Amino acid sequence: MTEKHKEAEEAHLPNTMGVPVRAGSTGDPEFTLSSPVVTHMERSQNWGWMVSGIICLNILILGCALVSGSAYEDINISTDHLQIYLIVLLILTTAWIIYFAVYTARQENAIVYQDSHAGPIWLRGGLVLFGILSFIMNIFKIASYVGYLHCDSAVKVAFPVVQIAFITTQTYLMWFHAKDCLQVQKNLTRCGLMLTLSTNLVMWMTLVTEESLHQTILPEYQQNESKSLGRSSYISKAGYGDDKCSCSHTSCSIFKEAYYYLYPFNIEYSLFASAMAYIMWKNVGRVADEHSHHHFKFRLREVVVGPVAGVLLVISGIATFIVYEMEMKIYSYDRDDLMNDHALMIHFVMNIVIVALMSLATLLGCVIFKLDHKNHVSEKNPTRSLDVGLLVGASLGQFIISYFSIVAMVATGANGHLNRLNLAWSIIMVIQLGLQNFFIIDGLHREPHLEIHLPTTVENPYLKENDKTQNECMESDLDKRMPAALEHKHKLSWKRRVVKEVCAFLLLGNIILWIMPAFGARPQFDHDTELKFYNFNLWAAVVNIGLPFGIFYRMHSVASLFEVFLRS
Amino acid sequence: MTEKHKEAEEAHLPNTMGVPVRAGSTGDPEFTLSSPVVTHMERSQNWGWMVSGIICLNILILGCALVSGSAYEDINISTDHLQIYLIVLLILTTAWIIYFAVYTARQENAIVYQDSHAGPIWLRGGLVLFGILSFIMNIFKIASYVGYLHCDSAVKVAFPVVQIAFITTQTYLMWFHAKDCLQVQKNLTRCGLMLTLSTNLVMWMTLVTEESLHQTILPEYQQNESKSLGRSSYISKAGYGDDKCSCSHTSCSIFKEAYYYLYPFNIEYSLFASAMAYIMWKNVGRVADEHSHHHFKFRLREVVVGPVAGVLLVISGIATFIVYEMEMKIYSYDRDDLMNDHALMIHFVMNIVIVALMSLATLLGCVIFKLDHKNHVSEKNPTRSLDVGLLVGASLGQFIISYFSIVAMVATGANGHLNRLNLAWSIIMVIQLGLQNFFIIDGLHREPHLEIHLPTTVENPYLKENDKTQNECMESDLDKRMPAALEHKHKLSWKRRVVKEVCAFLLLGNIILWIMPAFGARPQFDHDTELKFYNFNLWAAVVNIGLPFGIFYRMHSVASLFEVFLRS
Repeated sequence: MTEKHKEAEEAHLPNTMGVPVRAGSTGDPEFTLSSPVVTHMERSQNWGWMVSGIICLNILILGCALVSGSAYEDINISTDHLQIYLIVLLILTTAWIIYFAVYTARQENAIVYQDSHAGPIWLRGGLVLFGILSFIMNIFKIASYVGYLHCDSAVKVAFPVVQIAFITTQTYLMWFHAKDCLQVQKNLTRCGLMLTLSTNLVMWMTLVTEESLHQTILPEYQQNESKSLGRSSYISKAGYGDDKCSCSHTSCSIFKEAYYYLYPFNIEYSLFASAMAYIMWKNVGRVADEHSHHHFKFRLREVVVGPVAGVLLVISGIATFIVYEMEMKIYSYDRDDLMNDHALMIHFVMNIVIVALMSLATLLGCVIFKLDHKNHVSEKNPTRSLDVGLLVGASLGQFIISYFSIVAMVATGANGHLNRLNLAWSIIMVIQLGLQNFFIIDGLHREPHLEIHLPTTVENPYLKENDKTQNECMESDLDKRMPAALEHKHKLSWKRRVVKEVCAFLLLGNIILWIMPAFGARPQFDHDTELKFYNFNLWAAVVNIGLPFGIFYRMHSVASLFEVFLRS
Repeated sequence: MTEKHKEAEEAHLPNTMGVPVRAGSTGDPEFTLSSPVVTHMERSQNWGWMVSGIICLNILILGCALVSGSAYEDINISTDHLQIYLIVLLILTTAWIIYFAVYTARQENAIVYQDSHAGPIWLRGGLVLFGILSFIMNIFKIASYVGYLHCDSAVKVAFPVVQIAFITTQTYLMWFHAKDCLQVQKNLTRCGLMLTLSTNLVMWMTLVTEESLHQTILPEYQQNESKSLGRSSYISKAGYGDDKCSCSHTSCSIFKEAYYYLYPFNIEYSLFASAMAYIMWKNVGRVADEHSHHHFKFRLREVVVGPVAGVLLVISGIATFIVYEMEMKIYSYDRDDLMNDHALMIHFVMNIVIVALMSLATLLGCVIFKLDHKNHVSEKNPTRSLDVGLLVGASLGQFIISYFSIVAMVATGANGHLNRLNLAWSIIMVIQLGLQNFFIIDGLHREPHLEIHLPTTVENPYLKENDKTQNECMESDLDKRMPAALEHKHKLSWKRRVVKEVCAFLLLGNIILWIMPAFGARPQFDHDTELKFYNFNLWAAVVNIGLPFGIFYRMHSVASLFEVFLRS
C-alpha cells in the first residue's frame, strides 16, 4: 500500500472523535461525520496561527526587555532605543494595514462572512474616540519635543509622527473590518493581525511604564532627599529632559501638561485595538453568519433610580476628588500633615461609600439572577470569552493592590483612623470585585430576555436542502410566538427592571472609580503605611503594575455592564 | 402571561445560536436544537464554577502578598506567618479530600462517566514519583528543624508534618479519581477542587521563592561586601537560621544539604497536582465516555538513532555539568577568574551544541510534518488545551531570560569570547523554543497515525435509537478496514520513523536541559555581563521568576514529546 493510498484511506475514516457539528445538521451521515475536520481546520493551512503566535511572543518579549531596561536610569538602554524599536514596529504594521486594505478592496471574495458578535458599536466607537484623543496627544508631543530638537535626539519627534500615521490607518482598519471573517491569504492575515496585536501591546507597555514613572518620579527623588516618605510626595507633573536641555519655545510646559492628561486615553486606545486585533485574528477563516440578529435597543426611560443614584455618586465623587487633589497639591508643598490627613480621610470615606453602595447593588443583582432561573447560552463566542478573560485578568490588578494593603494593615495593627479606613476600603473593594465579576459573567452568559433572533445558520453548500425544510419549520415556529413576544415587549417585569437599575448604577459607579485613578489620585503613595511596611521599591512595583490593570478593569466593566443592561 | 409561562416558552425556543451538537446526531430536529443548552450547562447549577474561581483568586492573591512579603528580610512578614497560612490551607484541603473520598465511596452514582484523556499514566506516575520524593524531603525537613526547636518556632516542624498528610491524601485522590467526571455535589466538589488547586499553587509559589532565595542568597551578600559582582558568586547551599540559632544534633547540615536537592521535585509535584486538579475541576458534571479507546503502545525497538544520540547528549551534558559545578565551587572561593572563565566556556559551548542539535532535529520534524499532510483533531479536549497553554506559558520564562541576555549582549557590544558565546546561546535558544513549541503543538493536534478507535459517543438516552443504526454502520465500516490497518501496523513508514526518532532525541535533550538548571547551574549569575548591565535587582528578578518556568517547561516538554512519540 503506498503512502498516497494510506492517506486517502485516512481521509475517509469516519470522524469518531466527537467533533462538534453545527446545529441542525441532519441526514447524510457520511458528510456529517467527515466534514467538520475539513471545515474547522483546513489541511496544512493552520500553521499560520502558530507562526503568528510565535512572532507575537517574540515581539512582545523583546519589547518587554527593552521597556523594563529603559525604565531604569542606570541601565544603558535609553528611551531612544525603545522608540526606534517601536518606530520599526509601527511602520511595519502600518505598511501591512495599507496592503491589507488595498488587497481586500480589490479582491471580491475576500470577505464572505461576518461575525455579528465582533466589534460591537461601543468598542468601535470607543476606539475612534480614544484614537482622536491619542491623535491630539501626539500633536501636543510633537509641538513640545520640537522645542528640544537643538539638544535632544530627533527620534523623540519622529516617534509621535509615525504614531499618528499608525493610529489613523489602524482606526480605519478596525472601523471597517472589525466584523470580517477573512477567507483569503489567511496565513499572511493571521501574521499581520498578530503583528498589529503585539505592536499595540508593546505600545501599551511603553505608555503604562512612562505614565507610572511620571506619576512616581517625585516620591523616589524625595525619598532619597529626605526621610519623609510618601506623605508629602505629591505627584507633580514633571516633564522629560528638564535637567540639561531647555525648550526653545515658551509653550513647551503647557503642551507637556496637556499631553500627560491625555495619556490614559492612549493607554486605553492600545488596549481596545489589541482586543479588536485579537478578535479579528480569531475570526480569520471562520465560517460565520453574515447577518446580525441581535438588535438590542437602548431605552433609558425604563430605569430611573439607578441612573439618578449613579449620577449623584459620580458628581459627589468628582467633587471630593477635586478637593482631594487640590489639598494634596497645596499642603504637600507646605508639608502640612494635618491637612493632608484631612484630604486623605475625605478620599477614603468617599471611596468606601461608593464601593459599599456598589457591593450592595451587585448583591441585589445577584439575588435577582438567582431568583430568575434562565438558561445559559453555551454557544461558542470568541468575543464573549475574551470579554470574560479580560475582565477577570484585569481585576487581578486591583485585587493584588487591595490584598497587599490588607496584609500591611493587619500586620501593623491598623492603628489610627486612616489605617482603619484604608483597611475597610480594601476589604470592601475585594468583596465588590468578587461580586461584580460574578454579576457580569453571569449576566453575559444568560440568554437575552425574550429577544427574537432568527436562526444563525452556518452557510454550507452541501446542506442547503436539508436546511431549507428545517429553517421553514423554525420560522413558522417563531411566527407563532412573535405576537405574544411583541405584546409583552414594553412591559418590564420587576425582576428585569431591578437588574437594569443595578446595571445602570454599577456602570456609573465604575466610571467614577475609573476617573479617580486615571487622573492621578494615588492615595497608595500619599498614605505612607504600606510604603513604610513594604519599602518603596516593592510597593511602587505593586501599585504601578496593578493600577493600570485596575483602571482598565473599570473601563471594561463599564462596557460589559452596558451589554448586561441591554441583554437583560 | 405569567413568569412561569414565559420561562417555559423560552425553554422551547429553538436553539438558534449554533451550539455544537455531538457528532452523528441525526433526525429529530426538536431535540437536536434545544437539548445542548440543558446538557452543557444545568439550570442554576453553574454558579459553582464562578464561586470556586473567586475563592481560588482570593486564596492565590493573599498567598502572593504573603509570599512576596516574606521574601524580603526588611518586611515584617516572617516565614512563620506564611507557613501558618499554608498550614490552614493544607488542613482544609486534606479535610475536604477525606470527606470527598468517603462520600464518593458510599454514593453509588457519584461517578458514572470518565474522561479517557484526563490523568494519563505518565502524569499519575510522575505525581506518585514526585510525591514520594516530596515525602522524603519533608521527613528530612522535620529531622533538620527538630534540632532548632529549642530556639526557633514549632511552626517550622509542624509545616512539614501537615504537608506529609496532605501529600499522602492528595496523591491518593489524584491516583484514583483523576479520570472521574463527577455528577453529585457538583458545586461543593468544584469549590473543593479549586481549593486544592490554589493550595498547590500557593505551595508552588512558596517553594519557588524559597529555592530562588536559597540559590541567590550569597551573591546578594557578596555584592554588598565587595564589588566583585557575580563572577565569584558561587551559590553555596547555605541553610536557614544559621545566624543566631544553632542545631542541637550533629546531622542537621546533612539533612539540609539533602533536602535542598529534593526541592525541584516538590516544585514539580505541586505543578503536577495543580494541573490534575484543574482537569478534574473542568470535568465536574461533564458527560463523557466511560471507556478509553486510545491504546498507544510504547515500542522502543522502532527507533535507534534518536535515543542513542540523545543518551550521548545526556551523558556528555552531565559530564560537563559536573565539571562546571566543581570548577565553579573550587575556583569561586579562590577567586580564580581564569579558571571560572574556563568552566563557563565549557558550559556555554556544551549548551550551544545541545540547543543547536535540538533545533536542527526539531526543524527536521517540522519539515516531515509539513510533507506528511494529515487532518487535525478538532475535538474538544480540556487536557490538551491545558497542555498547550502550559507549554506556551512556561516557555515564556526561558524566552524572557534569553531576550534579556540578547539585549544586554547587543547593548554592550558582545566583547570577549564569553559574551559572544552567551549571545549565540541565547539566540539559538530562542529559535529552539519557537521551533519546539511549533513541533509539539502540531504533533499533539495531528490525528494519531492509523490508530483504530471505536466511536466515543456521548451517552444520551434520547438518541439511543438513532445511534444504533449509525454505530452499526460505523463498526461495519471499521471491520472492513481493520485487516488492512493491522497488516501495516508494524511497518513504520520512513516519515513516521523520522518523527519518532526526532521525538526521542528531543525528549532526551529536554531532560539534560532540565537537569542542569534544576540542580543549580546558574551561568546567569556566574557570568557578570548581564548582572552589571541590569544591576543585581532587576536581573535577579528576571532569572528567579523566569528560570522556574523554564525548568517546568523542559519537564513538561518531555511529557508532551512522549505523547507526540506515541501518537505519531
